[in-house]
Order: sequence, then structure tokens, then C-alpha cells
Amino acid sequence: MDSFKKYLTDYQQIINEMLFSYVRDYTYPGRLQEAMLYSIEAGGKRIRPVLLLSTMEALGAQHTRGYSVACALEMIHTYSLIHDDLPAMDDDDIRRGQATNHQAFDEATAILAGDALLTLSFQVITEDVNLTSEEKVYLVRELSKASGGTGMVAGQMEDMLSENKQISIDVLKSIHVNKTGRLLSFAITAGAYLSHPSDQSLGELTKIANVLGLIFQIQDDILDVAGDAGAIGKPVGSDEVNSKSTYPKILGMEGAIKEKEQYVDIALQSLDKAGVNATSLSRLIGYLSSRDR
Amino acid sequence: MDSFKKYLTDYQQIINEMLFSYVRDYTYPGRLQEAMLYSIEAGGKRIRPVLLLSTMEALGAQHTRGYSVACALEMIHTYSLIHDDLPAMDDDDIRRGQATNHQAFDEATAILAGDALLTLSFQVITEDVNLTSEEKVYLVRELSKASGGTGMVAGQMEDMLSENKQISIDVLKSIHVNKTGRLLSFAITAGAYLSHPSDQSLGELTKIANVLGLIFQIQDDILDVAGDAGAIGKPVGSDEVNSKSTYPKILGMEGAIKEKEQYVDIALQSLDKAGVNATSLSRLIGYLSSRDR
Repeated sequence: MDSFKKYLTDYQQIINEMLFSYVRDYTYPGRLQEAMLYSIEAGGKRIRPVLLLSTMEALGAQHTRGYSVACALEMIHTYSLIHDDLPAMDDDDIRRGQATNHQAFDEATAILAGDALLTLSFQVITEDVNLTSEEKVYLVRELSKASGGTGMVAGQMEDMLSENKQISIDVLKSIHVNKTGRLLSFAITAGAYLSHPSDQSLGELTKIANVLGLIFQIQDDILDVAGDAGAIGKPVGSDEVNSKSTYPKILGMEGAIKEKEQYVDIALQSLDKAGVNATSLSRLIGYLSSRDR
Repeated sequence: MDSFKKYLTDYQQIINEMLFSYVRDYTYPGRLQEAMLYSIEAGGKRIRPVLLLSTMEALGAQHTRGYSVACALEMIHTYSLIHDDLPAMDDDDIRRGQATNHQAFDEATAILAGDALLTLSFQVITEDVNLTSEEKVYLVRELSKASGGTGMVAGQMEDMLSENKQISIDVLKSIHVNKTGRLLSFAITAGAYLSHPSDQSLGELTKIANVLGLIFQIQDDILDVAGDAGAIGKPVGSDEVNSKSTYPKILGMEGAIKEKEQYVDIALQSLDKAGVNATSLSRLIGYLSSRDR
């Protein structure tokens, strides 16, 4: 295992242990807890929490203080996948290589498991004894703005409304910024907030935060055309089936790759100027851009 | 209009204005905002916010400091109704005298409108300039515990699991305590928390908080059998159709009424001992117990 893979795996392990115990430690009715654990334990890359903790590390901060908000972020990501997969939404059967939540349980349980994960995300931040009240308020406020009707949920809605429609690259960009970008961006800004960076560092990290969602999403679109279903853990071509607009469809495959590389350049240039310990963050950006799943 | 009706209406007006502007002031995609406003503007009795503000008033506190959390509480109540009405859950077509959210829009929009309202509830508390950080943290934490997988959502799940089953009165009580009681109880404890009551007052108010959900829910069960559909704004007899266990079904109508009155006695006795300005709260308890809608 190369050193970056080990870096990722180590962080993923820390996050998984905390995530599982958060969900297990509460006395939900059995079936609700099972459904929450089913999707939480299904794995996934834990990109958002890792990004948050890597940002803290790059700024020389003690990253244990980021654990609860990192887990909160992953809970919100997971709830959004559960609701997104529902028959009334994208109607997907397979996610992370296993049956989607409503297939493994039922629609009602999946809706409630999503609702409970969303609610739990705010609870775990407010219960963290390692954070000050001011920090908790900042994190809950920014996380709710990034994930709610002005952020991720807005992106979901825009995405649904654009199905079967010809949309411009600007509209597609706005969908992705909201749907994927806001949570990824929160990962960096929340990590920075907890680490008290210089203004210079904060400014450059914010620039990275702004393009990271686009890098991630363009690669997602590319994988849906050219990826390997086995590696990704869900069928490829689902964007085509759902008549979704994608970067390769609007710009062509070459154009999409070029667009993505432009954003990677912006991110890496900002990282150079940020005056932080950039090793892990730069490898993480490279990984997001060229991952095969 | 008698004085208590005017009291209710005045509070409802304050809450409605704030609620509407919270949802309107954010730049959601049009359809998402429309769907959120549709259910928020559908009316409803605003019992939970009124209860919170009445508690503050009874303790002599400035109730403007309770506005954001009162609205947050109503947002959570409203989101739970939207999700509860979905075809996969109770599959209801009519709510508050108009088409349910997924009937007026569509299922995907209804799911997202619910998600956005839930998320917004935590945002508005953290953005309130009249509260300290400590108060915000307390309110977000207690509201998430009352509404999530250890509270209201747990009750929803227990309720779904008990359909078409013979359940005991104890199980029914536990369902109601979670599904309805926790939010009503939060209304009183949050109002008390913001008003710094004496230990004696707090103890008695907590006792009232604990029985209020049962009073409310038994009356709900009674109305579903003996109520007037026009007044309630939804069809009666839906518990029978959905094979739900109810107080009248388990205890008989007389038994249900007797049970309810027992809880009303407990609440009014505690109110007597609480040493607060009890006028409005006692009328509110009477109203919850004998309302016809």
C-alpha cells in the first residue's frame, strides 16, 4: 500500500469508528437503527471528513477537534444519498455495491433513516465537549446553510428540474456547486475555521474550496460514461438513463477533461500560495480528480 | 371573539409572519420555496410555538427571545407532516383542508421541501441575534434530541411498525410520547430554559410537559372517531383505514376520555404548584384537551 493510500485508510478508520458509535449509542427502535447503520456502514470514500481533517492537519491544528463535525458531514452526505436513491427521486437500486436503503428495507424506513441522520448531524456537533459554544454555533449554522434549501437541497431540486431538458454549462455548474460543491467546500472552510489560519491561508483555502466540488463532479460525470461499474459500486450510464445533463454531454469528453484540469490547476496554485503544509491536501486534490470510483 | 381566542390568534399572527419571512427570505429554487411555503402557509393551530411563548409569558420573560425557536419547532412539525403524508408512509391526500404537499407538487419535491424545512429549523436558531451562543447550543441540542431518532422520528418508526398489530396500551403510550409528546414537551422546557425559572417552577412545568403529548394525542384519537371532518380539515376514520391502534380502540371511548382527564388533572395540579402566572397556560391545556380540530 503506498503512503497516500495508507493515509486515506487511516483517516477512514478513525471516521468509521466514530460514525458507527454515534449511530449505535442512541436507542433508536431496532429497525430504524439498522437502516441508519446499513447505509453508514456501506462504506464510501469518506472524502468530506478526510478533507476536513486534512485541512486541519495542513494548518498544524489538533485534528481531534474536527471529529464530530467530520462525522456530521458524512451523516448529511449519507442521508442525501438515501433520499436521492428513493423511487420518487433517482430510483436507484444499487449504491456502494449493495442494495439501496429502500430496497434493503422499505421506502418509509429509508425516508425516516435519512431524516434521523440529518437530525443527528446537528446533535453530535452540539454534544462535542471539545468545542466551545461559539464554535458549535458557527459549525451548525454553516453546515445547515451548506446542506439545506440554499445549498445541497437546492442543488437536488435544480437537478430534478433540469431532467429531460437542454441546459447550459452555466446552469449545470450552478447545480453542481450546490449539490456537491457546498458540502465539499464546507469541509475545507470548517477545517480552516477550527484551525485559526492566517488571512492569506484562509483566502487561498477558500479558493480551493470553491473549485473542489466542480473537480469532483466532473470526474463523477466522466466515470458515469467511462468508468467501471464494479469499481464504482453502482451501474454506469445512469445519467443517460435519467436524462441528466453532464459535462461530457455538453462539452464532449475531451472538453470535460480539459475543464476539470483547469480547476485542478487553480486549486494547486492556491495551495502553493497558501503557506501551509500542502503534501496531503495536494495528493487529495489529485485523488479527487483522477479517482476511478 | 372571546379573550382566549384572541390570545391564540394574536400569537398565531406573530408566529406566521416570522415563519413566512424565514422561508421567503432565502433564495431557494422557485419550486422548492413554493412547496415549503405551501405547507407552512396551510395554517394549522401553531400549538407548539404558542405553548413555548405562553410558557415564557407565564414566567414573566420577554417572549421575543423565543420567536426563532418557536418557528424552528413549527418548521419541524411541518416537515414531519409532509413526510408522514407521503405515499410510502400514511399516504394521505388531504391535510389542513387542502391537498397534501406531494399531491399539490410531487413526491420528490415534497421529500426535499421536508428536508429543507428540517435543516432550516437549526439554521434560524443559530442566526438569532437575540440569543447567546450557550442558549443556541442548548436549543439546537435539545431540539435535535426531541425530533430525531431518539424522539419524534423514533415515534414515527414505532408507529409504522405497529400498524396491523395488536399492541398494548403501554406500547401505544410510548409511541405517542415519542411521536407527539417530545416536541410538545420541548415547547415547554425550551420556553422555561429561556426564562430562568425557580427549581420549583421548572419541576412542575416539566411534569406538565410530560403529560401534554398524551392529552393531545388521546384527543386526536378521539377526534378521528367522533370528530367533524370539515372542522379537522382531513377525513375522519383514517386510523381505522390505516389499521392504527388508538386509545378509543384499546380502552373504549369512555376509557379514553377518562384517561385523558386524568392527565389533564395532573397537568392542572402541577400548574397550581408551579408558582407562575397560570391563566393562559391553564386555558391552553383545556383547549388542547377539548379542541374540536
